[in-house]
Amino acid sequence: MSVLIVGSTALDSIKTPKAENPRLLGGSASHAAVAASFFSPVQLIGVVGEDFPKKYLALYKKHKIDLTGLQILPGKTFHWSGEYELNMNNRRTLATELGVFETFNPTLPKAQQNAKFVLLANIAPALQHHVLDQTIKPAFVVADTMDLWLNIALNDLIKLLKRIDGFVLNDSEAHQLTQEDNVFTAIKKIHKMGPKYVIIKKGSHGSILSSPKGFFICPAYPLHKVVDPTGAGDSFVGGMMGYLATAKGSIDTNIRRAMIYGSVTASFCCEGFGLNQTTKTSRNDINRRVKELEQLTKF
Amino acid sequence: MSVLIVGSTALDSIKTPKAENPRLLGGSASHAAVAASFFSPVQLIGVVGEDFPKKYLALYKKHKIDLTGLQILPGKTFHWSGEYELNMNNRRTLATELGVFETFNPTLPKAQQNAKFVLLANIAPALQHHVLDQTIKPAFVVADTMDLWLNIALNDLIKLLKRIDGFVLNDSEAHQLTQEDNVFTAIKKIHKMGPKYVIIKKGSHGSILSSPKGFFICPAYPLHKVVDPTGAGDSFVGGMMGYLATAKGSIDTNIRRAMIYGSVTASFCCEGFGLNQTTKTSRNDINRRVKELEQLTKF
Repeated sequence: MSVLIVGSTALDSIKTPKAENPRLLGGSASHAAVAASFFSPVQLIGVVGEDFPKKYLALYKKHKIDLTGLQILPGKTFHWSGEYELNMNNRRTLATELGVFETFNPTLPKAQQNAKFVLLANIAPALQHHVLDQTIKPAFVVADTMDLWLNIALNDLIKLLKRIDGFVLNDSEAHQLTQEDNVFTAIKKIHKMGPKYVIIKKGSHGSILSSPKGFFICPAYPLHKVVDPTGAGDSFVGGMMGYLATAKGSIDTNIRRAMIYGSVTASFCCEGFGLNQTTKTSRNDINRRVKELEQLTKF
Repeated sequence: MSVLIVGSTALDSIKTPKAENPRLLGGSASHAAVAASFFSPVQLIGVVGEDFPKKYLALYKKHKIDLTGLQILPGKTFHWSGEYELNMNNRRTLATELGVFETFNPTLPKAQQNAKFVLLANIAPALQHHVLDQTIKPAFVVADTMDLWLNIALNDLIKLLKRIDGFVLNDSEAHQLTQEDNVFTAIKKIHKMGPKYVIIKKGSHGSILSSPKGFFICPAYPLHKVVDPTGAGDSFVGGMMGYLATAKGSIDTNIRRAMIYGSVTASFCCEGFGLNQTTKTSRNDINRRVKELEQLTKF
């Protein structure tokens, strides 16, 4: 089966202590879609401006991403620029230019309204609602978010939580949402808000799943060098959803392994600027690291 | 086989946002010794003053800890008092009264000089050296440390690293020691300083082993409530060494499982003030959580 992904499609200008890379292909939907494409067909819902480089459209196509739902509108593509500190964990936003994103009205092509696996990648909760409204009978809906929406669109987000199966957020966002310091207590509160599956991302410390079948402690692949972590969380959830969409059996049977595949896909994302390394990666490279993770966690 | 443990034997006064507990049994050697005692006989090397409560001596004995090497000297027992912040991760020292610890000269009883498994729990590196000098042919020596010794006794510590098999430290100490932000690059540098086994503790995020057989990503047991994390790191390394001392086969065969047992023992430590919860724990309780961790990490 395929995965329907909505989120931001952007140009990212990323500065680290070692390098500066202007106007890379970025955005939550771009990262999630490329990651998912290693495992299943992908349908992308997004918007770009007329300035969007043709080479990036070609890159989507190289990954066989269905662009029927990608709008190309007069105006400029959403542009984000940010700067990382030396430890590559803290970053600050230098500029955000919304461009065509400001009036984005995501529209599902008729053929995609029956999508079974839906990933509402990080984007304003109102737009996540709007996409969900257009689906007919999705089987498994997962949403990601960011601190910005907790700050400025909390009510929309809380309403969304009642409509989705899985919710993915990082540990500081879980704390912000629940006011709980203990991550497991926070998870319990988030379940009460709606989602049956809660996944807490902890960057290089891996992630935690809480599901009807209990907890899963998911490791991160050990990286000796992080070039640019932008999009790692999107790659994680994209890879996970791609894996789930084609795996046989129930969500509960597959979700742990799906997270491992997502985690490994995210590790490649961190090894290059933007999508540079991810797009050089093959399914074989991913499988190799998954095998390594099996060895690294055995006891 | 038994484990020889040297470290601090102290009275801890611990304040958290929810409670205040004066003069608990504490110190790195106390925590490590009780943890190790679930798995193997333990010989404790330490010093206390004449004010040391008899009930704490009884507690050591209940855990069958050999106290031949525990000196009871005129003067006061080492006393530490500290306060935790609401998130239970950050703490600050309110007072440190060294007492008899100031002139501590650890002396190994003759029968203990042949110890095969030696744990140099957190204490001044000079004292760790001094104990090591008195051993005859130890098979596996592990040292723990803290940021204080990196600040005031770095040379002693660096010399110690050339004499030990395993080194245990937390991620911020690894960063401080190597000036490396990436934990895996830091580990590589620490190996070059001597130890074949490097273990990085990451609190609730678990720990990482780097050994001749590669990395192991060791999970922490999921705790919904942390009452007092004091001594968790000591319990971890104590439990690990206790398990190793009685397991059949090579260190490489057993160390991953040993870390899991250490991790679980540390989880009980966090659930009570001082050693309150650890001493209520049974080997069966520990085995049960180890089984749970097997389930929690399977994919």
